Amino acid sequence: MRACIISVGTELVTGQCLDTNAAWLSEQLASVGVEVTEHVTVGDQLQHLAATIRQCIDRFDLVVATGGLGPTRDDLTREALAQAIGQPLVENEEALRNIKVYFQRLQRPFIDANRMQALVPEGCSIILNRRGTAPGLSCQSQNCLVYVLPGVPAEMKAMAEESLLRQLGARATGQAIRMASVLCYGKSEAWIGELLEDLMTPGRNPSVGTTAKDAIITIRMVARAINPPKAQQLLDADIAEVRSRLGKVVFGQGGDTLQDAVARLLMEKHRTVATAESCTGGLIANRLTDIPGSSTYFLQGFVTYSNQAKSDRLGVPAELIERDGAVSEAVAHAMAEGCRKVTNADLAVSVTGIAGPSGGTTEKPVGLVYIGLADDHGGTVKRFLFGEQLPRREIRDRAAKTALNLLRIHLLH
Amino acid sequence: MRACIISVGTELVTGQCLDTNAAWLSEQLASVGVEVTEHVTVGDQLQHLAATIRQCIDRFDLVVATGGLGPTRDDLTREALAQAIGQPLVENEEALRNIKVYFQRLQRPFIDANRMQALVPEGCSIILNRRGTAPGLSCQSQNCLVYVLPGVPAEMKAMAEESLLRQLGARATGQAIRMASVLCYGKSEAWIGELLEDLMTPGRNPSVGTTAKDAIITIRMVARAINPPKAQQLLDADIAEVRSRLGKVVFGQGGDTLQDAVARLLMEKHRTVATAESCTGGLIANRLTDIPGSSTYFLQGFVTYSNQAKSDRLGVPAELIERDGAVSEAVAHAMAEGCRKVTNADLAVSVTGIAGPSGGTTEKPVGLVYIGLADDHGGTVKRFLFGEQLPRREIRDRAAKTALNLLRIHLLH
Repeated sequence: MRACIISVGTELVTGQCLDTNAAWLSEQLASVGVEVTEHVTVGDQLQHLAATIRQCIDRFDLVVATGGLGPTRDDLTREALAQAIGQPLVENEEALRNIKVYFQRLQRPFIDANRMQALVPEGCSIILNRRGTAPGLSCQSQNCLVYVLPGVPAEMKAMAEESLLRQLGARATGQAIRMASVLCYGKSEAWIGELLEDLMTPGRNPSVGTTAKDAIITIRMVARAINPPKAQQLLDADIAEVRSRLGKVVFGQGGDTLQDAVARLLMEKHRTVATAESCTGGLIANRLTDIPGSSTYFLQGFVTYSNQAKSDRLGVPAELIERDGAVSEAVAHAMAEGCRKVTNADLAVSVTGIAGPSGGTTEKPVGLVYIGLADDHGGTVKRFLFGEQLPRREIRDRAAKTALNLLRIHLLH
Repeated sequence: MRACIISVGTELVTGQCLDTNAAWLSEQLASVGVEVTEHVTVGDQLQHLAATIRQCIDRFDLVVATGGLGPTRDDLTREALAQAIGQPLVENEEALRNIKVYFQRLQRPFIDANRMQALVPEGCSIILNRRGTAPGLSCQSQNCLVYVLPGVPAEMKAMAEESLLRQLGARATGQAIRMASVLCYGKSEAWIGELLEDLMTPGRNPSVGTTAKDAIITIRMVARAINPPKAQQLLDADIAEVRSRLGKVVFGQGGDTLQDAVARLLMEKHRTVATAESCTGGLIANRLTDIPGSSTYFLQGFVTYSNQAKSDRLGVPAELIERDGAVSEAVAHAMAEGCRKVTNADLAVSVTGIAGPSGGTTEKPVGLVYIGLADDHGGTVKRFLFGEQLPRREIRDRAAKTALNLLRIHLLH
């Protein structure tokens, strides 16, 4: 099955807005076995849009269009689809009812402009939109399956998952489909791939695959079965298997971040944390406080950039910095211990390293980072080389992620 | 002149990588009077790619393709273009020489695989690539002007500016073209628009327009003249005029950030800074240290999230927090003063506010932020309401930007 994605919107084709829908849909469709081979972006221009939909219907087995379903005059995708498939637009009662219910729920008056969102080309099915007013549309035209979804990413994603992806999964195999992703940090994709090799056999159900992005490894699983509960059962068994094989390397599922995982553990165990950062310059504190309610576990952080600050704030002996250098195991150790002592936090994490692009030597190259961790049993320090070729921003990101991950693993014990 | 952009790459069409080139090119082309009405993304697949280029040549006045010019087997854009315009590929001497010079400059041996990057469809001109090995290509096919540029954004942008945009500007008007963007913070687009109203008259040369994104207002100027020096002269006069009208609201040009502007001023004036952050959780420290060499001006930062930390680290009296609340003018003042005192920095900036989503009251709503600034003459505090409807992340971003901007304006005096 070969597919094409059409993104509709003048704001996209003029470059004022970045299209993220097409990339997301392509990845999701791949996971249900549909290969996307073309994206087309066009503006809110009826003739051009209708012709584009028409041509894509001729050339592909599946066409998914997003955008242009709003209630204003420049929302033309309904009309363009009607033209492309040669059907008149008619008011759909169910669509209208759903729009009215949506307004009631928000206790807002129904606006007549929204009535046009209930117009549907004859022969099309509607797809419920729980997060907005624009219903989606789907139909079969010639040998092509056509889906039209709203452009608002949150609405589009929810509707694609509930309709398009589920139906395509079922259609492709005649079966129900369930998907999950398990997130890992701290090991390479190759290391993970080796442990999951048998699960990744082509043709296996559930299918299991890995992708790596910004040092996070995602294990994507797709389960198929004769009905949804069976598919879910298969999926759950695989999630459990993957988690048991990979153990602590797994930090979450779906949209989780490392700081989400750390925050959950800190709250669960009623522990507090403080940070002492040099080369990451506040990035760890920033991520730990990115989460609503972070004040329950995050007490305070230090960005001790200068040597003086390391001594004044954290009590790192000046002689130690003099002897071993600011980027050293001993200093990372003293930073973490000092941070814990002055803040009375249960846990303290410290980072000192060389983010570059300059400041590296043969002995201490750009990318060298020491991460310390202290609790009431004492402290430990680990040494990392994130690679001289990485830009400053990525070295800082990698150091922050690794620190959060060490914190997470420490909290698991 | 109607244009289409083709983005080439399997990583794009599968959604593994987000395409930012098409949006950037669309915006740039618009500024030289070319309307982009379609984007197409296709994978590294020769027949599909050649057919796409062919069809776009038939339908548009300008086709710009990016990607697929690398030295590996899946880089097929050269060959696809040759097929689309019906010309054989021949080795281009100048292209080969440039590639060899590039390797010499990096003191790396020339790899034979790179030789294929010197292949050029007969009749095409090459576009020099100073940042990489892949030369760009351009040709006239029927009534269509075709440009092919590398997919690496930095290479693509530099080459587009030096060739495509400059030549199109000249072509569109028979004149030379020069562009600039001036960046502002702290005033609304409407406020700026009013001050520049006469410059923004349609048809004026240079043309002047504004866009707003994440609270930063960009003023874009395009100057046309019979030759490049004249165009530059016109542009420079307008940049000076805009800067003089807007004064301190302007923080930079081109790709500048607020932290770049602050860093420049701190280095110029040999001043040091320290930060005391509550709701921004280290974001300001992180941005100030994002810049290579930041250790010359950034001494240290505090993330005093808890009330205890505000008292312990910065000497904010517990009674004051008790009396006015942690989010108050008095506490912001005491944080900045305390921070400057304990760090001996020339300047200290403090932030305390309610980032949400919870924690707001009628009196102190989500989005309320106090920003303090202290120097050797004392301290000042400003109160901001960034809006309850903004998500936590945006309130934190806005607070950090505003703090950096206050720091910048303070340093201008």
